[in-house]
Amino acid sequence: MLATYLSDNKQRFLDELLDLIRIPSVSADAKFDADVRRAAEFVRDRLADAGLDNAEVIDTAGHPIVFAEKLIDPAKPTVLVYGHYDVQPADPYELWHTPPFEPTIRNERIYARGACDDKGQFYMHVKALEAMLATNSLPCNVKVMIEGEEEVGSEHLGTFVAANREKLAADVILISDTSIISNEVPSLETGLRGLSYVEVEVTGPNRDLHSGVYGGGVANPANVLCQLIASLKDDQGRITIPGFYDSVADLTDAERAELAKAPFDLDEYKRDLGIDDVMGEAGYSTNERTSIRPTLDVNGIWGGYTGPGAKTVLPSKASAKISMRLVPNQTPDEITALFKAHFEAIAPKSVHVTVTPHHGGLPYVTPTDSVEFEAASRAFEQAWGKKPIPTRGGGSIPIVALFEQELGIKTILMGFGLDSDALHSPNESYGLFNFYKGIETIPYFYSNYAKMKQ
Amino acid sequence: MLATYLSDNKQRFLDELLDLIRIPSVSADAKFDADVRRAAEFVRDRLADAGLDNAEVIDTAGHPIVFAEKLIDPAKPTVLVYGHYDVQPADPYELWHTPPFEPTIRNERIYARGACDDKGQFYMHVKALEAMLATNSLPCNVKVMIEGEEEVGSEHLGTFVAANREKLAADVILISDTSIISNEVPSLETGLRGLSYVEVEVTGPNRDLHSGVYGGGVANPANVLCQLIASLKDDQGRITIPGFYDSVADLTDAERAELAKAPFDLDEYKRDLGIDDVMGEAGYSTNERTSIRPTLDVNGIWGGYTGPGAKTVLPSKASAKISMRLVPNQTPDEITALFKAHFEAIAPKSVHVTVTPHHGGLPYVTPTDSVEFEAASRAFEQAWGKKPIPTRGGGSIPIVALFEQELGIKTILMGFGLDSDALHSPNESYGLFNFYKGIETIPYFYSNYAKMKQ
Repeated sequence: MLATYLSDNKQRFLDELLDLIRIPSVSADAKFDADVRRAAEFVRDRLADAGLDNAEVIDTAGHPIVFAEKLIDPAKPTVLVYGHYDVQPADPYELWHTPPFEPTIRNERIYARGACDDKGQFYMHVKALEAMLATNSLPCNVKVMIEGEEEVGSEHLGTFVAANREKLAADVILISDTSIISNEVPSLETGLRGLSYVEVEVTGPNRDLHSGVYGGGVANPANVLCQLIASLKDDQGRITIPGFYDSVADLTDAERAELAKAPFDLDEYKRDLGIDDVMGEAGYSTNERTSIRPTLDVNGIWGGYTGPGAKTVLPSKASAKISMRLVPNQTPDEITALFKAHFEAIAPKSVHVTVTPHHGGLPYVTPTDSVEFEAASRAFEQAWGKKPIPTRGGGSIPIVALFEQELGIKTILMGFGLDSDALHSPNESYGLFNFYKGIETIPYFYSNYAKMKQ
Repeated sequence: MLATYLSDNKQRFLDELLDLIRIPSVSADAKFDADVRRAAEFVRDRLADAGLDNAEVIDTAGHPIVFAEKLIDPAKPTVLVYGHYDVQPADPYELWHTPPFEPTIRNERIYARGACDDKGQFYMHVKALEAMLATNSLPCNVKVMIEGEEEVGSEHLGTFVAANREKLAADVILISDTSIISNEVPSLETGLRGLSYVEVEVTGPNRDLHSGVYGGGVANPANVLCQLIASLKDDQGRITIPGFYDSVADLTDAERAELAKAPFDLDEYKRDLGIDDVMGEAGYSTNERTSIRPTLDVNGIWGGYTGPGAKTVLPSKASAKISMRLVPNQTPDEITALFKAHFEAIAPKSVHVTVTPHHGGLPYVTPTDSVEFEAASRAFEQAWGKKPIPTRGGGSIPIVALFEQELGIKTILMGFGLDSDALHSPNESYGLFNFYKGIETIPYFYSNYAKMKQ
């Protein structure tokens, strides 16, 4: 019986996850390429062990994709599970209390890079499927696709999906890579933000200069970069790029009121982050600023002398990585083009600027009145004893919009993380409660969905 | 005879300088401390070889000071030669065409860190003194003090000078650490800018954050740092720190007209730097912007993810090194305090800022109607066949103002470098012509000065 199987195998489920986390599958840095492949092979083997068929590692022009399936009856609906085994870079390493790739359990949480995003979350599906298969309770067909480039824009997944529509044919996509409000207040995300990520470089003189001999007479690329970046937002926190908001779909007052129902404690939020005040676009709440509104953030900036002591130099160049989170109906191509044109236009003649696009993704909104959403909502009620609150997420899973375009399938964002899991940050963690509760919740989705589709 | 001695020993003079340059005496970085001491001992030994008495390496709380003297007659005037054997950090190393501490001679120039600033320049004095002593033509007393902390603010020299007024007693200070207009147009600098150097850090959330989950809702320290830095200058290129210009001594139209006589080719200036346009304070020429006007420049900036690829992170903190060149009658203490108060005042409540002073120095102006200046001016005429043009320099030698305060002695800035020597930059160089011409010019100063003081 399912519940028994889950409790009998708890420790093994966790041990397997920790083994997966120990593989530093950082997709952004080529020096980890071998580890990325090792992680893919590990996932393939666990999917086979779980009882799925045709488990394989599929090569791409980038990092490989892992695929497996269990087709029990062509007459029954098919669920496509998506996740990613790659992780964000772990630096700055010095801020980790324990090594990022040596998972440590402290106060009922797994501390490690990828503990939640997304190893901890997609692995719940591997184990839930194993449990259903072991207890003959899988009620429909399932396909599993776990990729290795989510953290770098899923560059090659699009090509793979377009070329494998038959292989990936399904009725719904199920993803666990988002958060709930809290362990007391489960929620289901109904939307995601898109992303446009660029790198800018400002070049002035052809060499670093003595700041005494030349200071005051020539443009300083670091000062100019600061001026250009500062000018991208006005004093209301609005982005000044011409046309940036043109395609933004504004929510109705009713929709905003609905979202405002989600419990939120500003003092707790500030306390958790250690800040005295929040900051953002005038006229919107913190929850709205981080979900239904687009953003522009510097992710990294560098230039000139950053070593110890003082060096009186005018740097020859300065650079920054800048990302913009997008909302319906903005597109990364449109926004990246607007950014590039504007940034080049505002640069003074005394410097040369280049704008290099990194990657992007479309925003996504899922309907809340569908059978799929209802099946997920009931699953939470059954496992958590509470109806989940619909929320809009601030993160991006670019592939979700692509699935809809290429496969014509809607996605259910059934995430079990918490905002405080410190994704992309030092000391990322995932609660053991969330890991096990997720494994318990997922089978309910399958049984609800199979019944409702009959 | 002096001229013969100089020509007979040309090659050895150069070989000795190259040996000195090979010692990476970077004062800003503790990992070079042993090399800094090695350079001090090398200079002491060469001063002894040159025939000076009491050559010694004097310890300080920081890097050591080298001192030597030759007192031929208490009735005669005394010249105090000052220079520094420490050098700027050499990075970015990858931009050097040949290794910074392996001096290479190309098209009659020495390429290496410190080739000009200040090893090449102060070593001319060591060799000129050797030549005068070897040919019994030193006409007055001389004291030589070469320090090892000029590139980091001469932190401990002040204490040493204050404690050794007798030892350092002299009638004039002679320094070669500045530039001439060109090898065809010799000049003598009549002023130097002061310096205030600070490091700022902007801290927001207590950890790096996921830019999707938190983006738009919290202050991004990198964006805020850019806003704060950008706000430090207005659209006229004027510094906005309240009170910043209050103590600036403006030049009369006559003084500006005098300075404007120095030949300057803007097109050549832009071509040399590879820029399409200059940039600076409205209402002033490039030469004025780099000499008689104060500045504010970012020397280094860093924060967030600067590795390969893309990381969607909101950095927890961002930092910058900022230096301000000062003009009479600004003081580093005054300006540093104004900067700190202003920077802290304009920081939004959503971040925490710290301002850490690095070091500073007072600006300096030397009179052009003195016996000392006349002696130097004639020396150039005798060696170069041209009367040098009086100019105002943009660089800083903080110790010059201190000498006047502590010892009551004026300084003659008898430099032989060129702005194109790329001081503080990769591929710093010094012309062999300038090195030998300097050694030839210096003895004329001594004979002129000794005569004129009789």
